[in-house]
Amino acid sequence: MVTVMRRPIPKATVARLPIYLQALLRHAADDPTISSEHLGALTNVGAAKVRKDLSYLGSEGVRGVGYDVAHLRSRIERELGLTRDYPVVIVGVGNLGSALANYRGFAERGFVIAGLYDTDRDKVGRRVDGLSIRHIDQLVEDARRLDVAIAIIATPGHAAQEVADRLDQAGIRSILNFAPATIRVPEGVVVRQVDLSTELQILSYYLQRGG
Amino acid sequence: MVTVMRRPIPKATVARLPIYLQALLRHAADDPTISSEHLGALTNVGAAKVRKDLSYLGSEGVRGVGYDVAHLRSRIERELGLTRDYPVVIVGVGNLGSALANYRGFAERGFVIAGLYDTDRDKVGRRVDGLSIRHIDQLVEDARRLDVAIAIIATPGHAAQEVADRLDQAGIRSILNFAPATIRVPEGVVVRQVDLSTELQILSYYLQRGG
Repeated sequence: MVTVMRRPIPKATVARLPIYLQALLRHAADDPTISSEHLGALTNVGAAKVRKDLSYLGSEGVRGVGYDVAHLRSRIERELGLTRDYPVVIVGVGNLGSALANYRGFAERGFVIAGLYDTDRDKVGRRVDGLSIRHIDQLVEDARRLDVAIAIIATPGHAAQEVADRLDQAGIRSILNFAPATIRVPEGVVVRQVDLSTELQILSYYLQRGG
Repeated sequence: MVTVMRRPIPKATVARLPIYLQALLRHAADDPTISSEHLGALTNVGAAKVRKDLSYLGSEGVRGVGYDVAHLRSRIERELGLTRDYPVVIVGVGNLGSALANYRGFAERGFVIAGLYDTDRDKVGRRVDGLSIRHIDQLVEDARRLDVAIAIIATPGHAAQEVADRLDQAGIRSILNFAPATIRVPEGVVVRQVDLSTELQILSYYLQRGG
């Protein structure tokens, strides 16, 4: 058996793969191929960079034809590890946490909300989208039992670090942080910080250019 | 007076400017400079690309020292048009719309929520974060009176296109679409589609690589 060592994929390319995937999922079903120019236009990425990014997946387009959409989709899904389900917990069940718990796009992409946690005793026991909110003191035990890999922090900023410390105790190594605060985590834990105003700032740029 | 024509900034660079800004805002206040390597590490962008991106702003770092943080921040804010406030409306006041209405990060960055709209007569008149929810039939008139430039769609997917049509009638040219549906808009209208699962997909990649 020959094992082919593939080049590691640069971080910036990894960050664009979900965006390509989103565009491919929206791409008209009646067109089985897509050019790098078209995919680039849909995602605001230059065509040359699209080709370079996809070359890391071993995907080469056919000149004058483009990429096979179905094949490219499954290739990206495999690369992103979307061929299995991941249990996800949400910590902080205010408006944003509730919205995320109800967000259909997560389960569709294999991210199954397995637990909701809050410190507010008035919220504990209430049901959101079929799940009972549990007290955060139960998180460590639950996360180990459910083999939770990913946590979403949706608390106010001042509570985020304490939550991050609990997640560390629970052995959770991937964190999506919506709280408006930077968290410190041990080596090896991956944190993605989401700032909802980023997209508005991009719109603002185009607005003032006479949009 | 000499007018210097600046190169247009590529779309991909525009999309990274808010991310650089976010990193700069989080950068320790006791360090007045930042290197392109450091800024790149904070934002998952290669140092060479950071330098290239910032060169479009006319910002050049000093070799061995880096960029002046305060100057770079204000330069990016100016480029993104963040030196003024923008009135923003949110259409669809479910969990996500309510979360966005309460999100402190918007006002801090000059995006002032000026109106909340829904079709649900039970919601109309209810207050969220100090604003009364209004019926969507009032949107066109309100938007013109308030000179609203940006709208956020936070409805279910099936309602998004009808909302987009209303926004067009109201003369709103910039849309941030959280609804899980593609919308058709006239030429010149800028739409940013937000898929909240993108970040989870990036985490998934690192998870399966033994994160």
